[in-house]
Amino acid sequence: MNGAHALLATLRANNVTVCFANPGTSEMHFVAGLDDVREIRGVLCLFEGVATGAADGYARVTGRAASTLLHLGPGLANGWANLHNARRARVPLINIVGDHATYHSTLDAPLQSNIFSIAGALEGWQRRTLHPNDVVNDATDAISAAYQASGQISTLVLPADVSWGIVSEPPTHWPVATHDALVAPNPDAIELALRRLRTTRSAIFLGGAALRRLPLSLAQRIGEATGARVIMETFPTIVERGRGTFHPERMNYLSEFAIAQMQDLETLILIGANEPVGFFAYPDVSSHVVPTSCVTVSLALPGTDTLVALHALVDGVSASDEHHLESYATPEPGTGALDSSVLARVIGSSITEGLIVADESISAGLHLYGATRGAPPHEWMTLTGGAIGFGLPVAVGAAIGSGRRVLALEADGSMLYTPQALWTMAREGLDVTVVGLSNRSYAILNLERERVGAVGEGAVSQRLLEIDDPTIDLCALASAQGVPSTRVHTGEELSIAIQRSFATPGPMFIEAVLPKGFS
Amino acid sequence: MNGAHALLATLRANNVTVCFANPGTSEMHFVAGLDDVREIRGVLCLFEGVATGAADGYARVTGRAASTLLHLGPGLANGWANLHNARRARVPLINIVGDHATYHSTLDAPLQSNIFSIAGALEGWQRRTLHPNDVVNDATDAISAAYQASGQISTLVLPADVSWGIVSEPPTHWPVATHDALVAPNPDAIELALRRLRTTRSAIFLGGAALRRLPLSLAQRIGEATGARVIMETFPTIVERGRGTFHPERMNYLSEFAIAQMQDLETLILIGANEPVGFFAYPDVSSHVVPTSCVTVSLALPGTDTLVALHALVDGVSASDEHHLESYATPEPGTGALDSSVLARVIGSSITEGLIVADESISAGLHLYGATRGAPPHEWMTLTGGAIGFGLPVAVGAAIGSGRRVLALEADGSMLYTPQALWTMAREGLDVTVVGLSNRSYAILNLERERVGAVGEGAVSQRLLEIDDPTIDLCALASAQGVPSTRVHTGEELSIAIQRSFATPGPMFIEAVLPKGFS
Repeated sequence: MNGAHALLATLRANNVTVCFANPGTSEMHFVAGLDDVREIRGVLCLFEGVATGAADGYARVTGRAASTLLHLGPGLANGWANLHNARRARVPLINIVGDHATYHSTLDAPLQSNIFSIAGALEGWQRRTLHPNDVVNDATDAISAAYQASGQISTLVLPADVSWGIVSEPPTHWPVATHDALVAPNPDAIELALRRLRTTRSAIFLGGAALRRLPLSLAQRIGEATGARVIMETFPTIVERGRGTFHPERMNYLSEFAIAQMQDLETLILIGANEPVGFFAYPDVSSHVVPTSCVTVSLALPGTDTLVALHALVDGVSASDEHHLESYATPEPGTGALDSSVLARVIGSSITEGLIVADESISAGLHLYGATRGAPPHEWMTLTGGAIGFGLPVAVGAAIGSGRRVLALEADGSMLYTPQALWTMAREGLDVTVVGLSNRSYAILNLERERVGAVGEGAVSQRLLEIDDPTIDLCALASAQGVPSTRVHTGEELSIAIQRSFATPGPMFIEAVLPKGFS
Repeated sequence: MNGAHALLATLRANNVTVCFANPGTSEMHFVAGLDDVREIRGVLCLFEGVATGAADGYARVTGRAASTLLHLGPGLANGWANLHNARRARVPLINIVGDHATYHSTLDAPLQSNIFSIAGALEGWQRRTLHPNDVVNDATDAISAAYQASGQISTLVLPADVSWGIVSEPPTHWPVATHDALVAPNPDAIELALRRLRTTRSAIFLGGAALRRLPLSLAQRIGEATGARVIMETFPTIVERGRGTFHPERMNYLSEFAIAQMQDLETLILIGANEPVGFFAYPDVSSHVVPTSCVTVSLALPGTDTLVALHALVDGVSASDEHHLESYATPEPGTGALDSSVLARVIGSSITEGLIVADESISAGLHLYGATRGAPPHEWMTLTGGAIGFGLPVAVGAAIGSGRRVLALEADGSMLYTPQALWTMAREGLDVTVVGLSNRSYAILNLERERVGAVGEGAVSQRLLEIDDPTIDLCALASAQGVPSTRVHTGEELSIAIQRSFATPGPMFIEAVLPKGFS
């Protein structure tokens, strides 16, 4: 048994059964090993950002780590942006980065680089395995690290000679990685939270694991018992929502509005999230969205048991078992030329039970979240780390992990970072419906430019924010990669296209043509 | 004047007049400044790997640094692979990485990451500017660092508040960056080289700056006078070649063959290159391609004046002024179904004077280099760092830098890493002819898999090396982004398509359909 086989066997023993791969020469033994370790599904991605984003999406819907397979420093770098999003999503994820043979890496060959320096910026676990006999232990450690209580990125660097070298004594029992238990909330923090809930204008701020149906309902009960508001983070990893689930306020992306949203608060109780801050800095706008006078209670930061924390509050405030779900109407399907409101109504009326939404709609999808509150129960994933190009790859992983239909709402500007994900959707026959929102513009930047006060009249700068010269044929981009595509201009057309895609196994791409610069 | 303007003015004063940009919110003041500093051409790229590769290509053909404009850590990471290639090409290049405002970067906002950790792996110069008043000095230092004798990557991190903050006293004279002079070769090394040339089986090993017409002819004269062989590095940054230029041996990519190529040598004299090593490690093959018994003379490592070194040898061996250029026939245009030999003959007969070739043909283009020796004078750029996805971006930068026609020979697997470069070609109306070599396979990996001894019979592993399910419509991928495209199956069709493209301003994409797995 060689090192690559030992690694695969360790992954299998620990239920890491999907590998999103973009291999090169140094990973050939790992690839060959997939012929023997059939429980691990190798999914080829034509660009590393697809592989890493897919591993993120897989973890978001399953709670389980997938592995990537990347080729040296450049492969890791190409996958880095979506690993950054995965780090911010706090999912477990295991990178396998093939490297030069140990004795080769001292020679400064063309592909040599400091892999640890790139991986270090992921703030996770990393190790280079130096001998085939260390593979099993190192891989187990990598998996354990990924499954720390709040989830992290593990990067295992596997030199080619470790991969092809022989493991002298393969284990008879494959070691089982540890999964860190969630930390119990601090009793003092519970007491403080309860006191503040009773006596001050409070909000419960929910994120991460607290955005499931049960914790959401607990938070709602606390709110009803105390008058506290319930606010969720702006960009959650995945949130359970729709009919039958409590729909909290969502913190606004725009700092100005977030500040206004928070301004009256005297207490903010964090459950599953860190203290929220402004996404970007803007001249004359505070980066702190929580008022200085507000007391922040870190009741359950990421890694702490949010259910225990919420139950403690429910008990402490003697919240009633009864709670009243506001019922939001499912919008009537939008009709006529696509605009902000029509788009929102179409999406709001199209969502089916169990659907998973990957939302990278950016400015074009501003109203989509609100319009889908009353839809049948579904889940919604967002851009946790701000590195665009996450939507299509995450949809790939979510479809593989869940076996359910995924709806990717994808802005054209963002889509162009990782368009190769479409090919993997076609190859694997994934049930992904992509709605490509074509406004031929970095519309968000037109907005941001004003917000940072860099308003210019100039045609030169304006041209750097527009992507309509030439206009990109999104349908052709999809069908070129094997995904059937269709272009729609009206609400009726979009509704029909989505329904058809939902009824048809495999992926479909729908280009929704919006007004230029639409946001 | 704000910091962004001061930066632009410093770049302008130092003749850094092209900025390959993929901006975000934190770069909006820089973008707005382009309206005022019109001498700097902003070129929008839809993915950062296009921007960085283009800056590499620009520097290869002009010898001058371009700047990039990237958005925080994820932007730099997305551009990292082609920066790695640029580092290996030893070109001057200046990254401008916008960052959060100084006071915002302590808040762990979603896009916060350790930019220096990512940039550090580029082994170049880096600095974060902390105040608008420091911009001019820091930018000048960045440019000076890029222009160290052998060229390097400078990364200047520009926080948003430094960008929008006011420079209290703008300089009246903009400082001029230093351009390091080349180091003179060591006289002892010259003496040693001369002694070994006279008494041992020697080869002159050329790379980097020594691959221009003049140094090549000097090397040839030394070879003729002494019987020494002249060998060039496998993957040069840019080489001048074709009719009228000496054509040295090229070191083989395959270590086994490179070892055979070098095995008789007693002396290897390095001029413009470091000692060559194997590209990858393979079981039972040495990573050292130069025999242990061979004396390596480091006469002119990168950064040393190769012309002075070569002239010293020419004088020392009293090389004749006369040297005899071998004349290589221009091949007859290939006809019939495209295969290895037909493809090589078509390209060999198509090259026109002054053409610049960006060669990322990988396995499909194995015979192209040899077949083009007898073509009219042209230049040839290769994949210096092994990070695929370099060809189309480098072609963008080379076309902008030279104003000449660029022929990109692009393997389908590699093309899929940075297909967004096609859009920039269309938008800027660049004279780039792309020949997309479609073999629907990672053919190089089928070869490498055998070489590393990871031969498997398995369908699972084989499927991870094939990209024909589904087959990608390369033409559609190009025309979707505004580049006219055509598909050819025969030598005649390919010849005509190339000629038509050469006669037509702007880009064209030609999909050359090769046998499956062709290499």
